[in-house]
Amino acid sequence: MRQSSTQLDIATPGRGLVEITGPVAQWTTGTGIANGLLTLFIRHTSASLLIQENADPEVRRDLERFLARLVPDGDALFEHRNEGPDDMPAHVRSALTQTQLAVPVNGGRLALGTWQGLYVYEHRRRAHTRQVVLHLIGA
Amino acid sequence: MRQSSTQLDIATPGRGLVEITGPVAQWTTGTGIANGLLTLFIRHTSASLLIQENADPEVRRDLERFLARLVPDGDALFEHRNEGPDDMPAHVRSALTQTQLAVPVNGGRLALGTWQGLYVYEHRRRAHTRQVVLHLIGA
Amino acid sequence: MRQSSTQLDIATPGRGLVEITGPVAQWTTGTGIANGLLTLFIRHTSASLLIQENADPEVRRDLERFLARLVPDGDALFEHRNEGPDDMPAHVRSALTQTQLAVPVNGGRLALGTWQGLYVYEHRRRAHTRQVVLHLIGA
Repeated sequence: MRQSSTQLDIATPGRGLVEITGPVAQWTTGTGIANGLLTLFIRHTSASLLIQENADPEVRRDLERFLARLVPDGDALFEHRNEGPDDMPAHVRSALTQTQLAVPVNGGRLALGTWQGLYVYEHRRRAHTRQVVLHLIGA
Repeated sequence: MRQSSTQLDIATPGRGLVEITGPVAQWTTGTGIANGLLTLFIRHTSASLLIQENADPEVRRDLERFLARLVPDGDALFEHRNEGPDDMPAHVRSALTQTQLAVPVNGGRLALGTWQGLYVYEHRRRAHTRQVVLHLIGA
Repeated sequence: MRQSSTQLDIATPGRGLVEITGPVAQWTTGTGIANGLLTLFIRHTSASLLIQENADPEVRRDLERFLARLVPDGDALFEHRNEGPDDMPAHVRSALTQTQLAVPVNGGRLALGTWQGLYVYEHRRRAHTRQVVLHLIGA
Protein backbone atom coordinates (compact mmCIF):
# COMPACT_ATOMS: atom_id res chain seq x y z
CA MET A 1 0.00 0.00 0.00
CA ARG A 2 1.35 3.43 -0.87
CA GLN A 3 0.18 6.99 -1.50
CA SER A 4 0.91 9.93 -3.74
CA SER A 5 -0.12 13.59 -3.72
CA THR A 6 0.09 16.64 -5.96
CA GLN A 7 -1.48 20.03 -6.54
CA LEU A 8 -3.18 21.20 -9.74
CA ASP A 9 -3.41 24.92 -10.42
CA ILE A 10 -6.59 25.48 -12.39
CA ALA A 11 -7.14 28.71 -14.31
CA THR A 12 -10.80 29.73 -14.34
CA PRO A 13 -12.13 32.37 -16.76
CA GLY A 14 -14.71 33.60 -14.24
CA ARG A 15 -17.96 32.12 -12.99
CA GLY A 16 -18.81 28.67 -14.29
CA LEU A 17 -17.65 25.07 -14.45
CA VAL A 18 -14.17 24.08 -15.63
CA GLU A 19 -13.70 20.38 -16.35
CA ILE A 20 -10.63 18.77 -14.78
CA THR A 21 -11.36 15.09 -15.47
CA GLY A 22 -8.53 14.85 -18.01
CA PRO A 23 -5.61 16.12 -15.89
CA VAL A 24 -6.88 14.29 -12.81
CA ALA A 25 -7.13 10.96 -14.67
CA GLN A 26 -3.73 11.51 -16.26
CA TRP A 27 -2.04 12.16 -12.91
CA THR A 28 -3.79 9.14 -11.39
CA THR A 29 -2.48 6.85 -14.13
CA GLY A 30 1.00 8.30 -13.75
CA THR A 31 1.22 7.35 -10.07
CA GLY A 32 1.14 3.65 -10.98
CA ILE A 33 -1.41 3.07 -8.21
CA ALA A 34 -3.98 0.88 -9.94
CA ASN A 35 -6.53 0.40 -7.16
CA GLY A 36 -7.33 2.79 -4.37
CA LEU A 37 -9.07 5.98 -3.32
CA LEU A 38 -8.57 9.36 -4.96
CA THR A 39 -9.44 12.51 -3.02
CA LEU A 40 -9.73 15.99 -4.55
CA PHE A 41 -9.63 19.00 -2.24
CA ILE A 42 -10.02 22.65 -3.29
CA ARG A 43 -8.19 25.15 -1.09
CA HIS A 44 -10.77 27.95 -1.42
CA THR A 45 -14.17 29.01 -0.07
CA SER A 46 -15.37 30.93 -3.14
CA ALA A 47 -14.87 28.08 -5.62
CA SER A 48 -15.87 24.46 -5.18
CA LEU A 49 -15.78 20.97 -6.66
CA LEU A 50 -18.63 19.16 -8.34
CA ILE A 51 -19.32 16.00 -10.28
CA GLN A 52 -21.80 16.76 -13.04
CA GLU A 53 -22.94 15.55 -16.43
CA ASN A 54 -20.20 15.99 -19.03
CA ALA A 55 -22.36 15.45 -22.11
CA ASP A 56 -24.76 18.32 -22.72
CA PRO A 57 -23.34 21.80 -21.87
CA GLU A 58 -26.95 22.96 -21.30
CA VAL A 59 -26.84 21.10 -17.99
CA ARG A 60 -24.03 23.29 -16.67
CA ARG A 61 -25.70 26.45 -17.97
CA ASP A 62 -29.00 25.50 -16.32
CA LEU A 63 -27.22 24.67 -13.04
CA GLU A 64 -25.54 28.08 -13.14
CA ARG A 65 -28.90 29.79 -13.82
CA PHE A 66 -30.44 27.93 -10.90
CA LEU A 67 -27.70 28.99 -8.48
CA ALA A 68 -27.77 32.59 -9.77
CA ARG A 69 -31.49 32.71 -8.93
CA LEU A 70 -31.14 30.90 -5.59
CA VAL A 71 -28.20 33.01 -4.37
CA PRO A 72 -28.54 36.37 -6.15
CA ASP A 73 -25.49 38.62 -6.45
CA GLY A 74 -25.94 41.80 -4.46
CA ASP A 75 -28.73 40.33 -2.30
CA ALA A 76 -29.65 42.88 0.38
CA LEU A 77 -29.55 40.00 2.88
CA PHE A 78 -25.77 39.96 2.79
CA GLU A 79 -23.54 42.28 4.86
CA HIS A 80 -20.25 40.82 3.66
CA ARG A 81 -19.45 42.72 0.47
CA ASN A 82 -15.72 43.36 0.82
CA GLU A 83 -14.94 42.13 -2.64
CA GLY A 84 -18.18 43.06 -4.38
CA PRO A 85 -21.72 41.77 -4.95
CA ASP A 86 -20.51 38.26 -5.91
CA ASP A 87 -18.35 37.83 -2.79
CA MET A 88 -20.84 36.41 -0.29
CA PRO A 89 -22.88 34.51 -2.93
CA ALA A 90 -19.62 32.69 -3.80
CA HIS A 91 -19.27 31.52 -0.19
CA VAL A 92 -22.90 30.33 -0.07
CA ARG A 93 -22.58 28.48 -3.42
CA SER A 94 -19.43 26.79 -2.08
CA ALA A 95 -21.27 25.72 1.08
CA LEU A 96 -24.08 24.21 -1.04
CA THR A 97 -21.70 22.25 -3.29
CA GLN A 98 -18.41 20.48 -2.37
CA THR A 99 -14.97 21.39 -1.10
CA GLN A 100 -13.79 17.81 -1.47
CA LEU A 101 -14.61 14.72 -3.52
CA ALA A 102 -13.56 11.08 -3.17
CA VAL A 103 -13.49 8.77 -6.17
CA PRO A 104 -12.53 5.07 -6.04
CA VAL A 105 -9.90 3.94 -8.57
CA ASN A 106 -10.18 0.49 -10.15
CA GLY A 107 -7.66 -0.97 -12.56
CA GLY A 108 -6.03 2.43 -13.03
CA ARG A 109 -9.31 4.13 -13.92
CA LEU A 110 -11.50 6.53 -11.94
CA ALA A 111 -14.81 4.83 -11.09
CA LEU A 112 -16.77 7.66 -12.74
CA GLY A 113 -19.98 6.80 -14.55
CA THR A 114 -20.21 7.28 -18.32
CA TRP A 115 -21.70 10.77 -18.01
CA GLN A 116 -19.80 12.01 -14.98
CA GLY A 117 -17.10 14.66 -15.17
CA LEU A 118 -15.01 16.31 -12.43
CA TYR A 119 -15.37 20.09 -12.32
CA VAL A 120 -13.99 23.12 -10.53
CA TYR A 121 -16.92 25.47 -10.02
CA GLU A 122 -15.71 29.07 -10.06
CA HIS A 123 -18.23 31.22 -8.17
CA ARG A 124 -16.51 34.60 -8.54
CA ARG A 125 -17.15 36.68 -11.65
CA ARG A 126 -13.54 37.37 -12.48
CA ALA A 127 -10.80 34.91 -13.48
CA HIS A 128 -8.84 33.12 -10.75
CA THR A 129 -6.21 30.43 -10.35
CA ARG A 130 -7.54 27.74 -8.04
CA GLN A 131 -5.48 25.18 -6.15
CA VAL A 132 -6.79 21.61 -6.13
CA VAL A 133 -4.89 19.07 -4.01
CA LEU A 134 -5.02 15.46 -5.22
CA HIS A 135 -4.31 12.54 -2.88
CA LEU A 136 -4.27 8.90 -3.92
CA ILE A 137 -3.83 5.94 -1.60
CA GLY A 138 -3.84 2.35 -2.77
CA ALA A 139 -1.73 -0.34 -4.40
CA MET B 1 -3.24 -2.55 5.57
CA ARG B 2 -5.43 -3.77 2.73
CA GLN B 3 -8.42 -2.71 0.64
CA SER B 4 -11.53 -4.16 -0.92
CA SER B 5 -14.06 -2.87 -3.44
CA THR B 6 -17.40 -3.87 -4.88
CA GLN B 7 -20.42 -2.45 -6.69
CA LEU B 8 -24.01 -2.54 -5.46
CA ASP B 9 -26.80 -2.29 -8.01
CA ILE B 10 -29.70 -0.53 -6.30
CA ALA B 11 -33.20 -0.71 -7.76
CA THR B 12 -35.15 2.50 -7.14
CA PRO B 13 -38.94 2.67 -7.59
CA GLY B 14 -38.77 6.31 -8.75
CA ARG B 15 -38.18 9.56 -6.88
CA GLY B 16 -37.34 9.20 -3.22
CA LEU B 17 -34.88 7.76 -0.74
CA VAL B 18 -33.90 4.06 -0.74
CA GLU B 19 -32.05 2.90 2.35
CA ILE B 20 -28.86 0.92 1.72
CA THR B 21 -27.40 0.78 5.25
CA GLY B 22 -28.07 -2.96 5.53
CA PRO B 23 -26.27 -4.22 2.40
CA VAL B 24 -23.42 -1.74 2.90
CA ALA B 25 -22.85 -2.86 6.51
CA GLN B 26 -23.10 -6.50 5.49
CA TRP B 27 -20.49 -6.14 2.75
CA THR B 28 -18.21 -4.20 5.12
CA THR B 29 -18.34 -6.98 7.71
CA GLY B 30 -17.68 -9.59 5.03
CA THR B 31 -14.39 -7.97 3.99
CA GLY B 32 -12.87 -8.80 7.36
CA ILE B 33 -11.44 -5.26 7.52
CA ALA B 34 -12.31 -4.20 11.08
CA ASN B 35 -10.93 -0.66 11.14
CA GLY B 36 -10.64 1.72 8.24
CA LEU B 37 -12.42 4.08 5.89
CA LEU B 38 -15.44 3.19 3.78
CA THR B 39 -16.25 5.27 0.70
CA LEU B 40 -19.52 5.13 -1.22
CA PHE B 41 -19.63 6.57 -4.74
CA ILE B 42 -22.70 6.76 -6.99
CA ARG B 43 -21.97 6.61 -10.72
CA HIS B 44 -24.80 8.95 -11.78
CA THR B 45 -25.68 12.64 -11.94
CA SER B 46 -29.46 12.30 -11.55
CA ALA B 47 -29.36 10.27 -8.34
CA SER B 48 -27.24 10.95 -5.28
CA LEU B 49 -26.19 9.71 -1.84
CA LEU B 50 -27.34 11.07 1.48
CA ILE B 51 -27.08 10.32 5.17
CA GLN B 52 -30.41 11.09 6.82
CA GLU B 53 -32.52 10.18 9.81
CA ASN B 54 -33.66 6.56 9.63
CA ALA B 55 -36.33 6.75 12.33
CA ASP B 56 -39.34 8.80 11.28
CA PRO B 57 -40.29 8.41 7.57
CA GLU B 58 -41.88 11.89 7.77
CA VAL B 59 -38.35 13.30 7.65
CA ARG B 60 -37.71 11.82 4.21
CA ARG B 61 -41.13 12.93 2.95
CA ASP B 62 -40.54 16.47 4.21
CA LEU B 63 -37.08 16.57 2.64
CA GLU B 64 -38.61 15.48 -0.67
CA ARG B 65 -41.30 18.16 -0.39
CA PHE B 66 -38.64 20.76 0.30
CA LEU B 67 -36.56 19.80 -2.75
CA ALA B 68 -39.66 19.58 -4.96
CA ARG B 69 -40.46 23.18 -4.02
CA LEU B 70 -36.86 24.41 -4.29
CA VAL B 71 -36.19 22.79 -7.66
CA PRO B 72 -39.59 22.51 -9.38
CA ASP B 73 -40.06 20.01 -12.18
CA GLY B 74 -40.69 21.79 -15.47
CA ASP B 75 -39.26 25.10 -14.24
CA ALA B 76 -39.19 27.56 -17.15
CA LEU B 77 -35.64 28.45 -16.08
CA PHE B 78 -34.32 25.18 -17.48
CA GLU B 79 -33.45 24.62 -21.15
CA HIS B 80 -32.25 21.05 -20.71
CA ARG B 81 -35.40 18.92 -21.02
CA ASN B 82 -34.17 16.03 -23.16
CA GLU B 83 -35.63 13.42 -20.86
CA GLY B 84 -38.60 15.38 -19.54
CA PRO B 85 -39.50 17.94 -16.87
CA ASP B 86 -37.67 16.03 -14.10
CA ASP B 87 -34.39 15.77 -16.04
CA MET B 88 -32.65 19.02 -15.13
CA PRO B 89 -34.14 19.17 -11.59
CA ALA B 90 -32.51 15.76 -11.01
CA HIS B 91 -29.10 17.20 -11.89
CA VAL B 92 -29.61 20.20 -9.60
CA ARG B 93 -30.77 18.01 -6.69
CA SER B 94 -27.69 15.84 -7.19
CA ALA B 95 -25.45 18.91 -7.10
CA LEU B 96 -27.06 20.04 -3.83
CA THR B 97 -26.66 16.63 -2.15
CA GLN B 98 -23.76 14.12 -2.43
CA THR B 99 -22.16 11.95 -5.09
CA GLN B 100 -19.86 10.36 -2.52
CA LEU B 101 -19.77 9.66 1.21
CA ALA B 102 -16.97 8.55 3.52
CA VAL B 103 -17.71 6.69 6.74
CA PRO B 104 -15.07 5.53 9.24
CA VAL B 105 -15.26 1.88 10.30
CA ASN B 106 -14.43 0.91 13.89
CA GLY B 107 -14.39 -2.65 15.19
CA GLY B 108 -16.18 -3.89 12.09
CA ARG B 109 -19.02 -1.37 12.42
CA LEU B 110 -19.81 1.77 10.45
CA ALA B 111 -19.36 4.84 12.68
CA LEU B 112 -22.94 5.96 11.97
CA GLY B 113 -24.88 7.68 14.74
CA THR B 114 -27.94 5.98 16.20
CA TRP B 115 -30.35 7.78 13.87
CA GLN B 116 -28.23 7.87 10.72
CA GLY B 117 -29.00 5.76 7.66
CA LEU B 118 -27.27 5.60 4.26
CA TYR B 119 -29.59 6.36 1.35
CA VAL B 120 -29.61 6.44 -2.41
CA TYR B 121 -31.69 9.46 -3.40
CA GLU B 122 -33.44 8.80 -6.71
CA HIS B 123 -34.27 12.14 -8.32
CA ARG B 124 -35.94 10.87 -11.50
CA ARG B 125 -39.64 10.04 -11.46
CA ARG B 126 -39.34 6.63 -13.03
CA ALA B 127 -37.62 3.52 -11.65
CA HIS B 128 -33.89 3.06 -12.25
CA THR B 129 -31.06 0.73 -11.33
CA ARG B 130 -28.26 2.77 -9.75
CA GLN B 131 -24.63 1.70 -9.42
CA VAL B 132 -22.97 2.43 -6.09
CA VAL B 133 -19.25 1.64 -5.80
CA LEU B 134 -17.99 0.74 -2.32
CA HIS B 135 -14.32 1.00 -1.37
CA LEU B 136 -12.88 0.03 1.99
CA ILE B 137 -9.29 0.53 3.09
CA GLY B 138 -7.97 -0.46 6.50
CA ALA B 139 -6.77 -3.38 8.56
CA MET C 1 1.12 2.78 6.24
CA ARG C 2 -0.96 3.03 9.37
CA GLN C 3 -4.16 4.63 10.68
CA SER C 4 -5.52 6.30 13.76
CA SER C 5 -9.01 7.30 14.90
CA THR C 6 -10.65 9.28 17.68
CA GLN C 7 -13.86 11.07 18.57
CA LEU C 8 -14.22 14.75 19.44
CA ASP C 9 -17.19 15.83 21.52
CA ILE C 10 -18.05 19.37 20.46
CA ALA C 11 -20.25 21.56 22.63
CA THR C 12 -22.41 23.90 20.55
CA PRO C 13 -24.20 26.91 22.09
CA GLY C 14 -27.15 26.56 19.70
CA ARG C 15 -27.54 27.38 16.01
CA GLY C 16 -24.40 28.54 14.25
CA LEU C 17 -20.87 27.56 13.28
CA VAL C 18 -18.33 26.31 15.81
CA GLU C 19 -14.74 26.20 14.57
CA ILE C 20 -12.87 22.95 15.21
CA THR C 21 -9.73 23.51 13.11
CA GLY C 22 -7.54 23.81 16.23
CA PRO C 23 -8.39 20.53 17.98
CA VAL C 24 -8.49 18.64 14.66
CA ALA C 25 -5.03 19.90 13.65
CA GLN C 26 -3.66 19.18 17.11
CA TRP C 27 -4.90 15.59 17.09
CA THR C 28 -3.56 15.09 13.56
CA THR C 29 -0.08 16.23 14.60
CA GLY C 30 -0.21 14.01 17.67
CA THR C 31 -0.76 10.85 15.61
CA GLY C 32 2.71 11.21 14.08
CA ILE C 33 1.22 10.46 10.64
CA ALA C 34 2.82 13.16 8.48
CA ASN C 35 1.25 12.41 5.11
CA GLY C 36 -2.15 10.93 4.47
CA LEU C 37 -5.89 11.49 4.37
CA LEU C 38 -7.96 12.87 7.24
CA THR C 39 -11.69 12.20 7.34
CA LEU C 40 -14.16 13.98 9.63
CA PHE C 41 -17.57 12.41 10.18
CA ILE C 42 -20.40 13.87 12.28
CA ARG C 43 -22.73 11.30 13.85
CA HIS C 44 -25.90 13.43 13.60
CA THR C 45 -28.54 14.51 11.07
CA SER C 46 -29.41 17.88 12.62
CA ALA C 47 -25.85 19.22 12.70
CA SER C 48 -23.30 19.07 9.90
CA LEU C 49 -19.73 19.81 8.86
CA LEU C 50 -18.56 22.65 6.67
CA ILE C 51 -15.38 24.26 5.43
CA GLN C 52 -15.84 28.02 5.36
CA GLU C 53 -13.91 31.26 5.48
CA ASN C 54 -12.28 31.74 8.89
CA ALA C 55 -11.41 35.43 8.51
CA ASP C 56 -14.49 37.66 8.54
CA PRO C 57 -17.25 36.51 10.97
CA GLU C 58 -19.75 38.35 8.73
CA VAL C 59 -19.42 35.45 6.29
CA ARG C 60 -20.76 32.96 8.83
CA ARG C 61 -23.56 35.33 9.86
CA ASP C 62 -24.57 35.88 6.24
CA LEU C 63 -24.51 32.14 5.56
CA GLU C 64 -26.78 31.59 8.56
CA ARG C 65 -29.14 34.32 7.35
CA PHE C 66 -29.26 32.71 3.93
CA LEU C 67 -30.12 29.28 5.31
CA ALA C 68 -32.69 30.74 7.72
CA ARG C 69 -34.46 32.30 4.72
CA LEU C 70 -34.09 29.24 2.47
CA VAL C 71 -35.30 26.75 5.09
CA PRO C 72 -37.58 28.73 7.42
CA ASP C 73 -38.28 27.40 10.91
CA GLY C 74 -41.92 26.43 11.28
CA ASP C 75 -42.49 26.22 7.52
CA ALA C 76 -46.04 24.93 6.91
CA LEU C 77 -44.53 22.56 4.33
CA PHE C 78 -43.11 20.36 7.06
CA GLU C 79 -45.09 17.67 8.89
CA HIS C 80 -42.21 16.48 11.05
CA ARG C 81 -42.30 18.76 14.11
CA ASN C 82 -41.65 16.31 16.95
CA GLU C 83 -38.97 18.44 18.49
CA GLY C 84 -40.24 21.86 17.47
CA PRO C 85 -40.20 24.30 14.53
CA ASP C 86 -36.41 23.96 14.05
CA ASP C 87 -36.47 20.15 13.89
CA MET C 88 -37.13 19.49 10.21
CA PRO C 89 -35.21 22.60 9.01
CA ALA C 90 -32.19 21.14 10.82
CA HIS C 91 -32.45 17.93 8.76
CA VAL C 92 -32.79 19.88 5.50
CA ARG C 93 -29.81 22.14 6.34
CA SER C 94 -27.76 19.01 7.09
CA ALA C 95 -28.73 17.47 3.75
CA LEU C 96 -27.64 20.66 1.94
CA THR C 97 -24.25 20.81 3.69
CA GLN C 98 -21.91 17.93 4.70
CA THR C 99 -21.95 14.96 7.05
CA GLN C 100 -18.33 14.16 6.22
CA LEU C 101 -15.22 15.93 4.99
CA ALA C 102 -11.90 14.62 3.69
CA VAL C 103 -8.73 16.71 3.96
CA PRO C 104 -5.30 15.61 2.69
CA VAL C 105 -2.42 15.93 5.16
CA ASN C 106 1.03 16.97 3.93
CA GLY C 107 4.10 17.22 6.13
CA GLY C 108 1.98 17.00 9.26
CA ARG C 109 -0.31 19.85 8.20
CA LEU C 110 -3.89 19.85 6.94
CA ALA C 111 -3.95 20.97 3.29
CA LEU C 112 -6.42 23.76 4.11
CA GLY C 113 -6.13 27.03 2.21
CA THR C 114 -5.19 30.21 4.06
CA TRP C 115 -8.78 31.25 4.64
CA GLN C 116 -10.34 27.85 5.24
CA GLY C 117 -11.55 26.67 8.64
CA LEU C 118 -13.27 23.44 9.70
CA TYR C 119 -16.65 23.98 11.34
CA VAL C 120 -19.41 22.06 13.05
CA TYR C 121 -22.66 23.66 11.94
CA GLU C 122 -25.28 23.35 14.68
CA HIS C 123 -28.72 23.61 13.10
CA ARG C 124 -30.84 23.24 16.25
CA ARG C 125 -31.64 26.32 18.33
CA ARG C 126 -30.60 24.90 21.66
CA ALA C 127 -27.15 23.79 22.82
CA HIS C 128 -25.97 20.25 22.02
CA THR C 129 -22.92 18.07 22.33
CA ARG C 130 -22.00 16.73 18.90
CA GLN C 131 -19.82 13.70 18.17
CA VAL C 132 -17.26 14.08 15.39
CA VAL C 133 -15.25 10.99 14.44
CA LEU C 134 -11.77 11.63 13.03
CA HIS C 135 -9.94 9.03 10.96
CA LEU C 136 -6.43 9.42 9.58
CA ILE C 137 -4.66 6.99 7.28
CA GLY C 138 -1.15 7.52 5.96
CA ALA C 139 2.52 7.26 6.86
